Amino acid sequence: MSGSTYGQLFQISTWGESHGEATGVVIDGCPAGLPLSARDIQPFLDRRRPGVSPAVSSRQEADQVQILSGVFNGYTTGTPISLLIPNTDTRPEEYEQMKHCFRPGHADFSFQQKYGIRDHRGGGRSSGRETAARVAAGAVASLLLKEFGISITAFTRALGPIHLPEGEEDFAFLPRSPVSLPHEGLSSKALLLLQENRKKKDSCGGVVECHVRGLMAGLGQPVFQKLDALLSHAILSIGGIKGIEFGLGFAASSLLGSQYNDCFFADNGRIHKSSNHGGGILGGISDGDLLLFRAAVKPTPSIGLPQDTVTQTGENTVLSISGRHDPSIVPRVVSVVEAMTALTLADLLLLHASSRLDALKKIYNASFQDSF
Amino acid sequence: MSGSTYGQLFQISTWGESHGEATGVVIDGCPAGLPLSARDIQPFLDRRRPGVSPAVSSRQEADQVQILSGVFNGYTTGTPISLLIPNTDTRPEEYEQMKHCFRPGHADFSFQQKYGIRDHRGGGRSSGRETAARVAAGAVASLLLKEFGISITAFTRALGPIHLPEGEEDFAFLPRSPVSLPHEGLSSKALLLLQENRKKKDSCGGVVECHVRGLMAGLGQPVFQKLDALLSHAILSIGGIKGIEFGLGFAASSLLGSQYNDCFFADNGRIHKSSNHGGGILGGISDGDLLLFRAAVKPTPSIGLPQDTVTQTGENTVLSISGRHDPSIVPRVVSVVEAMTALTLADLLLLHASSRLDALKKIYNASFQDSF
Amino acid sequence: MSGSTYGQLFQISTWGESHGEATGVVIDGCPAGLPLSARDIQPFLDRRRPGVSPAVSSRQEADQVQILSGVFNGYTTGTPISLLIPNTDTRPEEYEQMKHCFRPGHADFSFQQKYGIRDHRGGGRSSGRETAARVAAGAVASLLLKEFGISITAFTRALGPIHLPEGEEDFAFLPRSPVSLPHEGLSSKALLLLQENRKKKDSCGGVVECHVRGLMAGLGQPVFQKLDALLSHAILSIGGIKGIEFGLGFAASSLLGSQYNDCFFADNGRIHKSSNHGGGILGGISDGDLLLFRAAVKPTPSIGLPQDTVTQTGENTVLSISGRHDPSIVPRVVSVVEAMTALTLADLLLLHASSRLDALKKIYNASFQDSF
Amino acid sequence: MSGSTYGQLFQISTWGESHGEATGVVIDGCPAGLPLSARDIQPFLDRRRPGVSPAVSSRQEADQVQILSGVFNGYTTGTPISLLIPNTDTRPEEYEQMKHCFRPGHADFSFQQKYGIRDHRGGGRSSGRETAARVAAGAVASLLLKEFGISITAFTRALGPIHLPEGEEDFAFLPRSPVSLPHEGLSSKALLLLQENRKKKDSCGGVVECHVRGLMAGLGQPVFQKLDALLSHAILSIGGIKGIEFGLGFAASSLLGSQYNDCFFADNGRIHKSSNHGGGILGGISDGDLLLFRAAVKPTPSIGLPQDTVTQTGENTVLSISGRHDPSIVPRVVSVVEAMTALTLADLLLLHASSRLDALKKIYNASFQDSF
Repeated sequence: MSGSTYGQLFQISTWGESHGEATGVVIDGCPAGLPLSARDIQPFLDRRRPGVSPAVSSRQEADQVQILSGVFNGYTTGTPISLLIPNTDTRPEEYEQMKHCFRPGHADFSFQQKYGIRDHRGGGRSSGRETAARVAAGAVASLLLKEFGISITAFTRALGPIHLPEGEEDFAFLPRSPVSLPHEGLSSKALLLLQENRKKKDSCGGVVECHVRGLMAGLGQPVFQKLDALLSHAILSIGGIKGIEFGLGFAASSLLGSQYNDCFFADNGRIHKSSNHGGGILGGISDGDLLLFRAAVKPTPSIGLPQDTVTQTGENTVLSISGRHDPSIVPRVVSVVEAMTALTLADLLLLHASSRLDALKKIYNASFQDSF
Repeated sequence: MSGSTYGQLFQISTWGESHGEATGVVIDGCPAGLPLSARDIQPFLDRRRPGVSPAVSSRQEADQVQILSGVFNGYTTGTPISLLIPNTDTRPEEYEQMKHCFRPGHADFSFQQKYGIRDHRGGGRSSGRETAARVAAGAVASLLLKEFGISITAFTRALGPIHLPEGEEDFAFLPRSPVSLPHEGLSSKALLLLQENRKKKDSCGGVVECHVRGLMAGLGQPVFQKLDALLSHAILSIGGIKGIEFGLGFAASSLLGSQYNDCFFADNGRIHKSSNHGGGILGGISDGDLLLFRAAVKPTPSIGLPQDTVTQTGENTVLSISGRHDPSIVPRVVSVVEAMTALTLADLLLLHASSRLDALKKIYNASFQDSF
Repeated sequence: MSGSTYGQLFQISTWGESHGEATGVVIDGCPAGLPLSARDIQPFLDRRRPGVSPAVSSRQEADQVQILSGVFNGYTTGTPISLLIPNTDTRPEEYEQMKHCFRPGHADFSFQQKYGIRDHRGGGRSSGRETAARVAAGAVASLLLKEFGISITAFTRALGPIHLPEGEEDFAFLPRSPVSLPHEGLSSKALLLLQENRKKKDSCGGVVECHVRGLMAGLGQPVFQKLDALLSHAILSIGGIKGIEFGLGFAASSLLGSQYNDCFFADNGRIHKSSNHGGGILGGISDGDLLLFRAAVKPTPSIGLPQDTVTQTGENTVLSISGRHDPSIVPRVVSVVEAMTALTLADLLLLHASSRLDALKKIYNASFQDSF
Repeated sequence: MSGSTYGQLFQISTWGESHGEATGVVIDGCPAGLPLSARDIQPFLDRRRPGVSPAVSSRQEADQVQILSGVFNGYTTGTPISLLIPNTDTRPEEYEQMKHCFRPGHADFSFQQKYGIRDHRGGGRSSGRETAARVAAGAVASLLLKEFGISITAFTRALGPIHLPEGEEDFAFLPRSPVSLPHEGLSSKALLLLQENRKKKDSCGGVVECHVRGLMAGLGQPVFQKLDALLSHAILSIGGIKGIEFGLGFAASSLLGSQYNDCFFADNGRIHKSSNHGGGILGGISDGDLLLFRAAVKPTPSIGLPQDTVTQTGENTVLSISGRHDPSIVPRVVSVVEAMTALTLADLLLLHASSRLDALKKIYNASFQDSF
């Protein structure tokens, strides 16, 4: 499987550079029979797109998704779904400066070392622009999961020094927060912080948290396709993410087993856990509880302040980046985290369908019929 | 790719249950011409195996690896290498108690939900015993990497409340530490802590850190096969790992871009970075600097203290686990982290070989010849 | 890997329906540094496209390929290459008739059984139209192979009762034959046959043969990725192909070992074979000789003559297909056979690069440099 | 996916050399809940194994399979099934002669070119011995298919000049034929032919035909994972197979569409076809009819007659092969064809389970339950 392909049964292949003509994705493996139209996908892209608040870059991309294949009469047909999002506000000329030098914190240097050639315009393939395709594909995955009662919510747990204490989330406010922070007061503070960063020509990082509700027990494959392993793969594949933790995460490392273990109890014929320190995963398989993880986001590497760097020919120089950039990518990463989570879960849901003989027999007896 | 398979070109398939006859792995894709014998692999397994210190379980497994295929006259042949490690100290009878109830923190419940059947003997496939096969395969990967000057060192950064401050590592001491903690004083303290845990019938977690030296720039594939994405996948696939972070990791989330970015400078015709906050990765591709990450390890779920749980038929009960278990898996996880890192890097090294036309031409001109 | 994805390192994902807006392909894994433009790809599509002779369907598709990503300043960058071919001459209304009944010999029935839904317009995804994307991707693969001196030529060995005897090929004539038959006299006869078929509202099949020159020894992976296994997979994935044979193929089954074996001999320090009954493959690995195989093509299933069939609701009916169809797909399949062969060989060439330690060391010593 | 791995969901990794200690396979992805024991697998191996008739090599391998993992209390658990078959009658010394020269028709030369090293003992990995692992894995696949009413029968259609006419098959006799030829008279003739070949120190090829009964419609994935494409891949991966054809196969190439097309008709509420020229496949997807294909087997390359060849250092020489070899591999290939067919169909059956939303919902509603 090549580098821009993700998933085994619900498989996506994304393509596109920051300042190319378009970006897009081919989804291969979406089950037939899912109701789907561009209108269903668009809201997911709208959440991700820049230009909608002072919190983000001023690049104005409409991000209008087109479905080029795989849907017929309003339903998926089981064949590849090709989604295309034209780039409409490219300004490659703004990147002339980067043509000959390596931006600190960006992939310019490592791409050059790897390939001996790079599209310098806004980072080319390594730009955050490629996440539009992920979000479009993730929308389809989310719609599939919704059919099974599974819903995903990611949000800003921390932005720079601002931290939303556990238990104080106001999820009803979340859709109105321009920084995806579900707390009215802290959201306002965060917005001010971003404006201040922009003025100072600097940037900041943060922490994104993700909750999945309605997940059935049993998703994830031992040994190497554990649910947490695959989610980590998915989330760390997002540019700017430097860490992930599940449930209590790193805090678990200083607890005793007797403090950390989630005990089981039965109540009214159903099995429950007394706590959810493990974040809804046991032995790499979902246990049916709330799935919970957090991801660390580094500060946007593009800053207006002067930075030391070197040219492609190895001379020392100083660079001030003047393009259109986000003072923090955290608010936008939220939708990408949801997308990657949806893609991973959709894939595991399909994989799980073949894990048991009794379940398979049910499918073949009930849904498919041979005819000769 | 199924659940117990990992890697694309340097691919492994592991198998085996805790109390089955043996555990093993098939390595498919190791290049031909690597010197290899069981003696080369054994030291890696010796580091992982239980029964060598008071820090670990008293289960006595010799972990003697056998090479059943793929090696001829002392060299790999390019065909699958089958490694087998017999289980010699199984005591399935000790697990009768677990047959009918779910151990908290273990995969018993989720496996049962997933498959409708489970091998209850010591956790079956979900036991840490499966990591012996990973370590054996990782040894081969490590030997391959060594041919390219790449070396991997993982160690205990923290064990319960004991934390090794950055900069105080004494790597010369590491091989003598029974808890893989490269600091004589803290290592002794850690050993005492483990003995205390055992007495209290409790367990503790910790943090494992991993360093890779000698890595060339260019490993990792954009977008979904980023070096950090694949390493996260690999490390989180180890049982008991609840988080990972690269470079500054979660700490990056509260820094400014101007503080976090690693600036470049040229010196004597070579390009350097002024810091390594990113942990040796830029845009998901190795930058040639020290690769550095940390993993959070949860406390061993098996503890002697009584815990609330439920039986398979849904009745409440209390369980005290009396098997042979590690008071902390941290010391043993160290070798597994190294193994998974080696497997990931070996795979990316092979993948990278086909990334550039100029490099490919060099191979085909120099090494291979057609003959008709 | 999902159904519309092919290849491991040189990986393609095709998409598109016969009467959708466009068809296309994402190539992920093409090495960086290959000179590439739409002009380089277009000639391959021109050979495949309908509407250029009385031998083919009257559907007029310009098949103008667009490169949407992965190429910068005239060279591939190592990132996904997205190719798009608009559909310009769709007439879905012509297929209203097929909406409710199953065309004999087509995938209508099996798609309906599989997915419970189907795009009936010209067969949707099962139409030969999808091969445009294959040919576009195959063009890139061919250009890559050309860099290594490898060239592929497929041609019509037989069309209905017309058979080109071995040894009478006139390859210089091939580019001028509208039926891809490298023999002037037989080509004219074949063209007449096709016109006659059209008049009779019937169709015919044939045999396509493929030769690969300049192939180095060593391509193909034992055991399941044998060169002939992968080529068979590739060629049988083309709609309408019902068989494949390598070298002497089925004729080998009635020979003695002493007649069939290709003996080796050395001459002037090079190793040769006295014959090439095996078609350039030994043990599933190329031996450096001419690679040769033949594929059986069934008659075009769409015919104007009335045929018995059933409606989707299970009533007997009679169907005469009036759309724009090829009297034989053989002439067009030739370019698809070349494309699939190129894709398979490009993939194996990349895979082979990581098969030997000595070769890998050469790459890493010569082409890549670490910098810290 | 590496060279010795096959399948996507029902995935196998085989290993082992002709004269190594053992051969084996890891099956990863077999659904949980399938009744399985070594006794269930053994009969499949017994059919394949040499030494049971004058028709085959005199090498005496017991081929006793051991199950090392993945089965608990008589049922598969969903985790990897490791099967091991010890080699008991190896005589590597008999192959000293081949150490320095290339056997015509074998993989010696191409392996040497590919890897720069080869296990010369009986062909090492390229020996037919590796098919024991395929047959063991195929047995598990067959047992899985049996749960769905699917059965596979392969047989000798032709052996050298002896050809079993269509319609004269006596399948009741098949189990008693030492050459897997379902016709008492022709079977006797075939046995005489093989004895004669042995006397003449020569060998012969043949044709194996395979029938699958009880297959539901809908298996196979468009475009590149077509049922016939995958079966071709599977069958051509068997050493010595030089061609495959489905239904009428190559004969289709000289028919008219009106002759070839299988027409549909409805009878008593069920849909039937008036003929089965396509071999049970429409558009690469099973149509529910009898699946039928034929494979061409080349003559055994190992013959006692003197053959011209070259040494590894490039000198001309003459070689007479004196090892224990089959006068024809056809009788033994029959069981390998069945195994590869079973593996392919089992994989597609699992893949198909996730193709439709309605079917998936059925699984998740009926079989799996979340618990929190």
